[in-house]
Amino acid sequence: MPQETVRVTYRIETAGDPEAMAAKIASDQSTGTFTDLPGETEEVRARCAARVEEVRPLPPLDVPSIPDPEDTGPYNRADAVISYPLEAIGTDIAALMTITVGGVYAARGLTGIRVMDIELPPAWAAHPGPQFGIEGSRRLMGVPDGPMIASIIKPSLGLLPEETAGVVRTLCEAGVDFIKDDEKLMSPAYSALEDRIAAIMPVIEDHADRSGKRVMYAFGISSADPDVMMRNHDMVLAAGGTAAVVNINSIGHGGMSFLRKRSGLCLHAHRNGWDILTRHPGLGMEFRAYQKIWRLLGVDQFQINGIRAKYWEPDESFVRSFHDCMTPIFSDADRPLPVVCSGQWGGQAVETYERTGRTLDLMYLGGGGIHGHPMGPAAGVAATRQAWAAAREGTDLATHARTHPELAASLEKFG
Amino acid sequence: MPQETVRVTYRIETAGDPEAMAAKIASDQSTGTFTDLPGETEEVRARCAARVEEVRPLPPLDVPSIPDPEDTGPYNRADAVISYPLEAIGTDIAALMTITVGGVYAARGLTGIRVMDIELPPAWAAHPGPQFGIEGSRRLMGVPDGPMIASIIKPSLGLLPEETAGVVRTLCEAGVDFIKDDEKLMSPAYSALEDRIAAIMPVIEDHADRSGKRVMYAFGISSADPDVMMRNHDMVLAAGGTAAVVNINSIGHGGMSFLRKRSGLCLHAHRNGWDILTRHPGLGMEFRAYQKIWRLLGVDQFQINGIRAKYWEPDESFVRSFHDCMTPIFSDADRPLPVVCSGQWGGQAVETYERTGRTLDLMYLGGGGIHGHPMGPAAGVAATRQAWAAAREGTDLATHARTHPELAASLEKFG
Repeated sequence: MPQETVRVTYRIETAGDPEAMAAKIASDQSTGTFTDLPGETEEVRARCAARVEEVRPLPPLDVPSIPDPEDTGPYNRADAVISYPLEAIGTDIAALMTITVGGVYAARGLTGIRVMDIELPPAWAAHPGPQFGIEGSRRLMGVPDGPMIASIIKPSLGLLPEETAGVVRTLCEAGVDFIKDDEKLMSPAYSALEDRIAAIMPVIEDHADRSGKRVMYAFGISSADPDVMMRNHDMVLAAGGTAAVVNINSIGHGGMSFLRKRSGLCLHAHRNGWDILTRHPGLGMEFRAYQKIWRLLGVDQFQINGIRAKYWEPDESFVRSFHDCMTPIFSDADRPLPVVCSGQWGGQAVETYERTGRTLDLMYLGGGGIHGHPMGPAAGVAATRQAWAAAREGTDLATHARTHPELAASLEKFG
Repeated sequence: MPQETVRVTYRIETAGDPEAMAAKIASDQSTGTFTDLPGETEEVRARCAARVEEVRPLPPLDVPSIPDPEDTGPYNRADAVISYPLEAIGTDIAALMTITVGGVYAARGLTGIRVMDIELPPAWAAHPGPQFGIEGSRRLMGVPDGPMIASIIKPSLGLLPEETAGVVRTLCEAGVDFIKDDEKLMSPAYSALEDRIAAIMPVIEDHADRSGKRVMYAFGISSADPDVMMRNHDMVLAAGGTAAVVNINSIGHGGMSFLRKRSGLCLHAHRNGWDILTRHPGLGMEFRAYQKIWRLLGVDQFQINGIRAKYWEPDESFVRSFHDCMTPIFSDADRPLPVVCSGQWGGQAVETYERTGRTLDLMYLGGGGIHGHPMGPAAGVAATRQAWAAAREGTDLATHARTHPELAASLEKFG
């Protein structure tokens, strides 16, 4: 039986030979140093040597991804697959990131380097993965089928807890399934988490008592200090809350791992900060690789922007991200609920549905599109549901809007 | 009294107007969304609005940092200083990173964005900072003055614990002050941390008993799971160890925060992975900003490469990093020991000394330069100390080597 390996695909860009660069990376990340050493025997190498499995050439570039003062182009490119023995890495994410990612970014002679994918062997299935994922999210929200319609508190920062609770009441009455704190809201002086919980949870409970619908509210519990984050988590749980927003990059692998092991909440991940890792196509890391790590760490719901998002991300990148989230790593249970968001108001529902494999296993999150609807937030939610009904039925939005005035108003304002 | 603020300097690059982009960033990171909202009153804005303090134009670029398919250059640049009210951010590093860094990286219309510096108000002095720092490192190593001469286990991966212990014995006898695991070595199957501690610590103790010199050994304790990392920490401490290598990006802010609060070890930071955040000059983050966060979190010793490092980093970048580490954030006690490393063999001592402010408060770490010395590791250490003596005395290395055969041999092999 061949040894189990971790296989990493790198997009390498260099004025030199990409194949030689792949070999250098494999050597540097196992036993290499800058001079020959007496102890580097064949036996030592065999124990943990990384191996170049495949190099697939790509067209060269005239302009390097990282500026090259010596102007030594053209810049040759290839996708190189390097395998690392599981024995050398184990199953710790810190080891994986250090050996297969961190060190590679430092190599001299590169003008571009991007981690395209990380394939993990079965031993990695031991990671906890999502506690709730798609099915658990549906269960907690009481939405057995169809898209989960969600909104966010607006304005995103600056409201006092009582003001926020007022917005929560409005959104509950408008008929959303899920509400979240803006990811930038954690526990500032003017809206301490404890006060926000005390103001908001009675509104959620009251609405549940009156309507039978228990809206999921995700509180911003992130802290760089895991002890503080756990206290935040425990406060939410004790008050009957079911979810939390976690800024995964800001808390780091350690924060996420610590939280997941102790969590009773559905963990809604914001990947805030990720953009700098991915927006230059020749540098950093594809979302495909990135999201695997965070899923294994326990993300239940993953914000991935949407069609015509208000940020830099092109639609194709969002579509790839959606499919990445829907692809099992080891099993269906490790799939998070994709959260389609940013500038969403329903107008993107048909295209989203068509381009993401015609699934309704998603959360569709509108901020301004609901709060700013000309007929009010309830109409904003109705318009969003109408847009998804159109998508499901294969009707175009304009046609559907003829018999649905809320959608018509959305199309007029946001379309 | 003016409100306390966090001031962040961004290098903005855009085909549009950098000043308008700075205003957009300030708005997005406080209350903005893509459409007007009823709740965004003046009062809400005042509570947490970020403000553009200053915009300093820079020469435009013809080639954008991030490829621009629409080729809309030239690409205008400016350094913009934006202040954020402390009331909105508080003192949590997750809030700081989310609000002032993460969100900014996502803005549409940028072709480049780099965080140049983060200035923190006095309230942030409450973070723990280094437990040992420069003075504590000297005390634990018993090196009251002069540079601390250090080495690393080579080959970096693949040795069994007993083989590693053999290398440790050699290095102790060679006269180093400090030895570390390669940052890529944590607890793989062939060299579990527990076994490595059991093999190495008796060598350290035996050497201390015989020579009176207790060499500091930094064990790789990193884990993405803080519970595992603490068990690793506790094993090292219980065995009499004094230091640990931590891969700060791989464990994340949460891991570091958790460890520091409970640590009895001197924390030697490897910034593995940082390179992708900084090697493109138009993107990511300057080390100046980055290192402040990790110092506040508790880094005692900070690896920052060196002159003529084997990685991509230019010498000027290393020199800036050194000065950054030596600059107090709030007090001298928050300065980590700078660890000068990568391809170092003594030949860079004079230039290092001259360009870093003629200080000897540093660790100088040689791997191949010591292990690969033609007269053996003891001669490698001697040559390194001789090089630093030359630097201190203002003698050039060639002259000093005439009366110091070890240095002469180094110059011949590595020079």
